[in-house]
Amino acid sequence: MSNNKRFILSENEIPTAWYNIVADMKNKPMLPLNPKTRQPLTVDEMSHIFTLEASKQELNQTDRWIEIPDEVRDLYKHYRPTPLVRATGLEKALDTPAHIYFKNESVSPVGSHKLNSAIPQAYYAKMEGIKNLTTETGAGQWGTALSYAGKAFGIDVTIFMVKVSFEQKPYRRSIMQTFGGHVFASPSDVTSAGRAILARDPGYTGSLGTAISEAVEMAIGTPDCRYALGSVLSHVSLHQTVLGLEAEKQMDMAGEYPDIVIGCFGGGSNFSGIAFPFMRHNILDGKKTRFIAAEPASCPKLTRGEFHLDFGDEAGYTPLLAMYTLGHNFKPASIHAGGLRYHGAGTTVSQLLKDNMMEAVDIKQTDTFKAAQLFAQTEGIIPAPESSHAICAAINEALKCKEEGTQKTILFNLSGHGLIDMTAYDQYLSGNLHNYEISDAELKANLDELNRIIK
Amino acid sequence: MSNNKRFILSENEIPTAWYNIVADMKNKPMLPLNPKTRQPLTVDEMSHIFTLEASKQELNQTDRWIEIPDEVRDLYKHYRPTPLVRATGLEKALDTPAHIYFKNESVSPVGSHKLNSAIPQAYYAKMEGIKNLTTETGAGQWGTALSYAGKAFGIDVTIFMVKVSFEQKPYRRSIMQTFGGHVFASPSDVTSAGRAILARDPGYTGSLGTAISEAVEMAIGTPDCRYALGSVLSHVSLHQTVLGLEAEKQMDMAGEYPDIVIGCFGGGSNFSGIAFPFMRHNILDGKKTRFIAAEPASCPKLTRGEFHLDFGDEAGYTPLLAMYTLGHNFKPASIHAGGLRYHGAGTTVSQLLKDNMMEAVDIKQTDTFKAAQLFAQTEGIIPAPESSHAICAAINEALKCKEEGTQKTILFNLSGHGLIDMTAYDQYLSGNLHNYEISDAELKANLDELNRIIK
Repeated sequence: MSNNKRFILSENEIPTAWYNIVADMKNKPMLPLNPKTRQPLTVDEMSHIFTLEASKQELNQTDRWIEIPDEVRDLYKHYRPTPLVRATGLEKALDTPAHIYFKNESVSPVGSHKLNSAIPQAYYAKMEGIKNLTTETGAGQWGTALSYAGKAFGIDVTIFMVKVSFEQKPYRRSIMQTFGGHVFASPSDVTSAGRAILARDPGYTGSLGTAISEAVEMAIGTPDCRYALGSVLSHVSLHQTVLGLEAEKQMDMAGEYPDIVIGCFGGGSNFSGIAFPFMRHNILDGKKTRFIAAEPASCPKLTRGEFHLDFGDEAGYTPLLAMYTLGHNFKPASIHAGGLRYHGAGTTVSQLLKDNMMEAVDIKQTDTFKAAQLFAQTEGIIPAPESSHAICAAINEALKCKEEGTQKTILFNLSGHGLIDMTAYDQYLSGNLHNYEISDAELKANLDELNRIIK
Repeated sequence: MSNNKRFILSENEIPTAWYNIVADMKNKPMLPLNPKTRQPLTVDEMSHIFTLEASKQELNQTDRWIEIPDEVRDLYKHYRPTPLVRATGLEKALDTPAHIYFKNESVSPVGSHKLNSAIPQAYYAKMEGIKNLTTETGAGQWGTALSYAGKAFGIDVTIFMVKVSFEQKPYRRSIMQTFGGHVFASPSDVTSAGRAILARDPGYTGSLGTAISEAVEMAIGTPDCRYALGSVLSHVSLHQTVLGLEAEKQMDMAGEYPDIVIGCFGGGSNFSGIAFPFMRHNILDGKKTRFIAAEPASCPKLTRGEFHLDFGDEAGYTPLLAMYTLGHNFKPASIHAGGLRYHGAGTTVSQLLKDNMMEAVDIKQTDTFKAAQLFAQTEGIIPAPESSHAICAAINEALKCKEEGTQKTILFNLSGHGLIDMTAYDQYLSGNLHNYEISDAELKANLDELNRIIK
C-alpha cells in the first residue's frame, strides 16, 4: 500500500475508450420509447433532438468500449487525468480505521465533472455541422461546462437555468456568459412550455424537468440546432466513465481496491462515472464492492420513487424512460444542491438498482453541510452541495467501520467544488438552513397522477 | 520539445528547500529598520510581531537554501506539485509564434498561491506554542489560506479584510468562516488604528496598509498571538519559491527555458515565487531571461513610485522598509484586483528593480479583463483579476513576438482563479468597468508627504 496523499496519472494515461456497462448487463435497461407508438426509438428519431453520435451511443447495448476521439482527449488534457486523493485529514478527524479516497473532479476548469460529457457532445455537434446547442442547467455546472466546450468547438450555446439556482447562484450565470453562453432563467417566456407553466404558477422557482422542456422545444424549433443533456441518459453516463476508469488505475497505484464506491445522485451521471468501471468487476470477476448512490431526502426517487415509464421533462416532450421516478410533475424543494433536484433516475442506473447491483441512501440537507464543513476543514476543499451528499454517505460508512472495528476502503467522487455556493454555506453557518421532506401523501398523489397519465 | 499540454510532477518531487535569492544578490536589500533607532531590526525585536522562525528567515541574507519542514511538505501534498500548462488555446487565438506556459496555482484548495506561505507560517506558530494569528487580507485569498492553514495546525485566526473587498466579495468572507476564521471589515472599530481612520474618514473603503495596522495592533496586544503577513516581506517571497522551483523542473520536462518570466505584482510574493528560481540562473549562470512584474495602472509603485524608506502600514506600526513606494498614506482606487492595492513593494524586489535585474509594466483594469476573458475562453479557467495582470502582460509580449516574427518562450504565474470575482466580470461584460489612474500632482503630493514624515 502506498503512503502517497495524491495519485497522479500522466496525460497519456487518459483512457482511450469509455466503458459501456450496458453491454455487460444481464438485464438490459429498456430503450427510450416513442410516447405515441410505445416502440423503442430509432437512431433516426433520436437524432432529431440529439446529435447523431450521441443518439447512436444512447442505443448501443452491445459494444463494451466506445472509442474517445482524439480531439476530445486533447481537450480532456486541459484538466485530466484528475487526482485521486487519500482523505487522510478526514480519516484522522473521524478517527476511523477506514481508508477514504476521493476522485477530485473539482479541479476541472469549470469546477465539476460535467465537462467530461460537454466536450464530446460539443465535438460531435461540430463534426455533424450543427451550429447551436441548447440545454438546461440546475446548479449551473452543466451549463458552464457546455458553454466552455461550445466555445472551444465554435458552437453557440443557449442555457435554460432553473430559476431558483439562477437567483441563488448569480456567479454561475456570469461564468457561463464569460464563456460566451446565452442564459435564460427557467421557466422563461421565450418558449411555449415556459409560458404555460408561468401562466399556471407565476411564482414557480423551476425544476430541471421544466428547463429540459424549454431547451428541447427551442432545439426542435431552431435550424442547425440540437439539444444536449448533462445527465440521466446512458450516453452521458458513458462519457463520465472516463473518471472511474482513471480512478481504477489510481486505486491500483494506491495498492487498494474499494469495498464501497459512493457518488451523489441527481440524474445519475457522476455516480455512473465513478461506479460503472468498478461494477464491471462485480459483473465479470466476482468482486463484491458495494455501490451507494446518495440522494437528497427532499428528492428521493431512488429510495422512495416508483419504477415506472415516465417523461424526462415537465411538458412531456422527451421519449418515455423506464426509471425510478417521483413523477415528472414533481416539484422539488429549493435545496442548494440544485443539480440533484430531478424527478427521475437514468434508465441504466434504474435497472441496476432494480437488480440489486447497487444501493441508495437519502440524506438531509443540514447533514450534507455538516459533512461539507468537516471536509473543508480537513481536506481544504469547499465541496459543492451536491458532492456533499457523497461526502456525508462516505462519512457515515467510515463511522460504521469505526463502530464495527473493520477497515474498509471507501472511494467517493468529489464531483465539484462549492465556491459558487457560499450563500448556502452562509445559511448553514448562521443556522438558517432547513430540511425538506416530501410526505407520504404528497408522494402518493404525485405517483397516482403519473399512473393516470402513463398507463 | 514535448507536445504535452500539462507537465505534472510526482509528490516526491516537491522541493525540499526554498530558494533564498538574497544570499546570491550582489547588493543585498536593506534589512527592516527600527523606526526609532534607524538600526536594523534584530531577530528578537522582529519576533515580538512575527513567529521566531519567520523572523530568522526574514533576516537571513546568507543561506541560499532553507529547508522545508516535513510537516509543511505533507500539507503541500494536498495540492502540490501544481501543473505547468502550455497555453496552446491562447497561443492559437493570438496566432503567435511565442510559446506560452503558465504555472497553475489556481488549483490550490484555497484557489491561489497564498497557501504556500500560510502553511509554514501556521506551522511555525504551532511549533512555537503560539495560539492565535492575526492578519490582513485584500481580495481575501491570503485570509482564506491562513484560515485553512491555521485550522490544520490548531491555531485560531483573525482576519482584517479590506472593506472594499469585504463588500465586493462576500463569498470570500464565507469561505474564511467555513474554515473557522474570524473576519472583520477594515477599517474596523475593534482596534485604535481602525477607529482613528474611521473618525477621520467614515466612508473610507480601506487599504492593505490600514488592515495591516489593525492586525499588528491586535497581535501585539493579545497573549500568545503573532502577526502573519501574506506578501511584501522576504520570508513570504522565500516560501513562494516552491512554485518557481517546481516550474523550473517542469520547463525542463517541456524541453524549454523561459526567455520571459511574468508575475502580477501586489507586494511581490507571487512574482518572487515564479521569478527568483529562474533569476538565480541570470545571476549565477549568465542566463538572460527578462523578468516582468505586472502592476495595476491605479497603483503604480514600481513604475512611478519612489525608492524610499517607508512604513509597511498606514498607521506606522511596522519597521521601516527600503522600497519602491507610493507613500504609506496612498489611498488606492477600488479596483477589483484587491490583492494588488498596496502602496509598496518588498525590499528584495525593490533592490532587484533598482539594480535592473527585472522590469515592471503597469496595466489598465479594462485591459486585464479583456485578457482574462480571452484566457477563460481559450484555456477554460476564469482567472483572478490579480492574475489577469500577468496574463495581459504575457499576451502583450506574445503579440510583440508576432509583430517581430520571433519565437520566444514566455512563462507566467496564474496565481489564482477568479470564481469569487464574478461581480467584476459582470461589470466588465456589461461595459460598466472603469479605469483609474493617479495624477502626477496627486502622486507628488503623496510622495512629498512621505519625504516630510520620513527623512
